[in-house]
Amino acid sequence: MKRFTEKIAPTANMEIEKRIVAHLDDLTKPQGSLGRLEEFALRYCLCKGEPNASLEDARFFTFAGDHGITEENITPFPSEVTCQMVENMAAGGAAISIMCRHAGIDYAVVDMGVKSDLEDMPNLIKRKVDYGTRNFSREPAMTQEKTLAALEHGFALAEQAAPDILGIGEMGIGNTSSASAIYSLSLGLDAATTVGAGTGSTGEFLERKIEAVQKGIDLHKDAAGDDPFKILSCVGGYEIAGMTGMILGAASNRIPVVVDGFIASSAALIAMGLEAKTKDYLFFAHASSEKFHRHFLEKEGIQPILDLDMRLGEGTGAVLALQIIEQAMACYSHMATFSSAGVSNKE
Amino acid sequence: MKRFTEKIAPTANMEIEKRIVAHLDDLTKPQGSLGRLEEFALRYCLCKGEPNASLEDARFFTFAGDHGITEENITPFPSEVTCQMVENMAAGGAAISIMCRHAGIDYAVVDMGVKSDLEDMPNLIKRKVDYGTRNFSREPAMTQEKTLAALEHGFALAEQAAPDILGIGEMGIGNTSSASAIYSLSLGLDAATTVGAGTGSTGEFLERKIEAVQKGIDLHKDAAGDDPFKILSCVGGYEIAGMTGMILGAASNRIPVVVDGFIASSAALIAMGLEAKTKDYLFFAHASSEKFHRHFLEKEGIQPILDLDMRLGEGTGAVLALQIIEQAMACYSHMATFSSAGVSNKE
Repeated sequence: MKRFTEKIAPTANMEIEKRIVAHLDDLTKPQGSLGRLEEFALRYCLCKGEPNASLEDARFFTFAGDHGITEENITPFPSEVTCQMVENMAAGGAAISIMCRHAGIDYAVVDMGVKSDLEDMPNLIKRKVDYGTRNFSREPAMTQEKTLAALEHGFALAEQAAPDILGIGEMGIGNTSSASAIYSLSLGLDAATTVGAGTGSTGEFLERKIEAVQKGIDLHKDAAGDDPFKILSCVGGYEIAGMTGMILGAASNRIPVVVDGFIASSAALIAMGLEAKTKDYLFFAHASSEKFHRHFLEKEGIQPILDLDMRLGEGTGAVLALQIIEQAMACYSHMATFSSAGVSNKE
Repeated sequence: MKRFTEKIAPTANMEIEKRIVAHLDDLTKPQGSLGRLEEFALRYCLCKGEPNASLEDARFFTFAGDHGITEENITPFPSEVTCQMVENMAAGGAAISIMCRHAGIDYAVVDMGVKSDLEDMPNLIKRKVDYGTRNFSREPAMTQEKTLAALEHGFALAEQAAPDILGIGEMGIGNTSSASAIYSLSLGLDAATTVGAGTGSTGEFLERKIEAVQKGIDLHKDAAGDDPFKILSCVGGYEIAGMTGMILGAASNRIPVVVDGFIASSAALIAMGLEAKTKDYLFFAHASSEKFHRHFLEKEGIQPILDLDMRLGEGTGAVLALQIIEQAMACYSHMATFSSAGVSNKE
C-alpha cells in the first residue's frame, strides 16, 4: 500500500496560512463575512501549498461497477440499470452529465466493473477489472489482486487528469450495501445502523438488505480486522476501489477532491484509513438523505457544504458543492482589495 | 398600493403540478432522489404556470442606499463606504460582481439613495430618490411620497429587465438597523431580539445600535401600526424599498426572485405583508449568520437553500442559491427519460 500513500503531504503550514488569511482580510468585504466560503478558499490554497493558488480547471468522474450482493434480492432495480445508466451518462442524458455540462466541467464515466461489455463512447473510460463483484454475503467481493488493480486505475486516472480539483461520484446497483458494510466493518457497527433505503429498498427489500449486509459483516469480520484494504476487498466494489484510488492519487499530487454522498464517502473512509492525512484534501459535498451518512459526517467532525436531501449519487451533490468552492476561489483570486479600490476599512 | 399587487396571481395549480411531477418522475433517476432540487424545479415551473418552463436568463441587482441612523454611531464603518462599494460593484471588484461574472449572470447595482453623487458607470443604474434616509430614531426615515417613488423604481426595473428569474441583494452602511426595525415593527418584537452585529457592530457599537433601533420602534409604533407600507416608510431605506418594489414587480409578472440574506428578507417581509401571494415567487437563498435571520425564516416556515455562515449581503448568497436552482432546472429540462434512454425503472 505504501506507494499509494507515501507522497501524501500534510497541508497545514502556518506561514502560508497567515498569508492566505491576510489576503482574505484585505478583500473589500467585512472580515469573515463570506463565512464558509473563506474556509473553502483557505483549505483549497493550503492543499495547493500556495497562497496564490487559482482554480481554473475541474474534472469529474463517475465510477461504475456491479455488485454480486444483488443476488440477495435487496433492491427493486435490476442490475442491468448500472450498464444502462453508464451509457446514459456517457451519452449526456443523466443528471451528472447535464450538471457538469451546465457548469462547464470536463466529465467522464469510468467502467470499473460493470457486468456487461460496453460500446466505445466519447465520455466513457474503460478500466473494467471484472464483470461485477462476488456476492459478499457469501464470499469476498474482490480478490486482493483485483482490488489493487482497481486502486491503481483510480490513482493513475487522477495523475493523468491532473486538474486543479477533482470531483467523484458513482453508479452501481447494490452499492449502498457495499458502502454500509464498509462503514460497519470500519467503525464496528451492525448492519441495522448503517443500512438505509438506498435507491429504493423499502419494506421487504430493506429487511433482506440488512440481513445480507449483516451476513457479510459476520463472515468477513475476522479476516478483514481493521485493515482498510482488506475491508475494501472483502465487502467493497470496483467503483468504490476506483474512487479510493483516485482520492489517494489526488492527495499524492496536492489535488483536492470533492466527495459526493454516502458511497463516495465510504471510499473516502478507506482512503483516510490508509493514510489519515488524506482527509485534508477532501471536501465533503453534502449530507445525503441516506440515513447513516449524516452520522458518519458527524463522527468524523465534518460539516458538509450542502444539505439538500439528495440521494442520487453519480456525483450530483459534488457538482453543486464544487460550484460553491469555485465561487469562493473566484472571490479570493479576483476581488478588489481595500487599498486598490479606495474603499475605507473600519474606522 | 393596489397597483403594485393586483396582478399577483397564486402559483398553485393542481393540473400543472401533476404534469410537472409526472415529468420529474420520468427522468432517469430514482423518484425524488434529487431531493430539494425537485422542489425547486416544481416551484419554479409553478411560478411560470408552465410545465415546460425553462430557465435561461437570470439578472441580478444590488440596491444601494445610505441611512441617517448612522448618526447614532452604531457601526465602525463610515457611511462613505456605501458609495465606495457601489463604485467597486460597478467596476467589477466586489464579491457580487465577481460571482455574477463567474456564473455568467447579467448584473447591475442600483443607486436608490446613496449620500453622494456617483459618476456614470456601465453597470450602475441611477434611480436616486434622495441622498440617504433621515435618522429613524428621531423622525420618519422617508416621506410616503419618496417611499412610493422607490417602490415604483424597483417595480419598473423588474418589468423592464423581465428575465426568467431575478436575484436581489443590497449595500448600505446602517441598513441592518433598518431591517431590524422592520422585523420588530412587523412582528411585534423588541430591538434586543432583532438587532445583531451586522457588518461589525460589537461591544459599545452594538449597545448603541440596540438603543437607537428601540428608540425608532417606540417612536413609530403607533403611527405605523401593522401597515407594511408605513413601516417601510418610517424605518426602512431606499434600497429596501427598491427591493420590495422589485419583488412586487417580479411577482406581478410571474418572475421568481432569489432573495439574499437578512436585509433582502426584510424587503420580502414588507412585500409579503402587502400581498401574501408574493411568497410563492420567492426563493430564500441562505440563512445569514446575522442572528435574527434564522428565527425569521423559521417563523415563516421557510427552509433556506444554503447555510454557509455568510453575512456579506450584496446578493452573494443569492448567486450561489441561483446556481443550484439553475442546475435543478437544467436537469428538469435536459435529462433523459426512462423510455428515451432505454433505462429500466423499478421492477
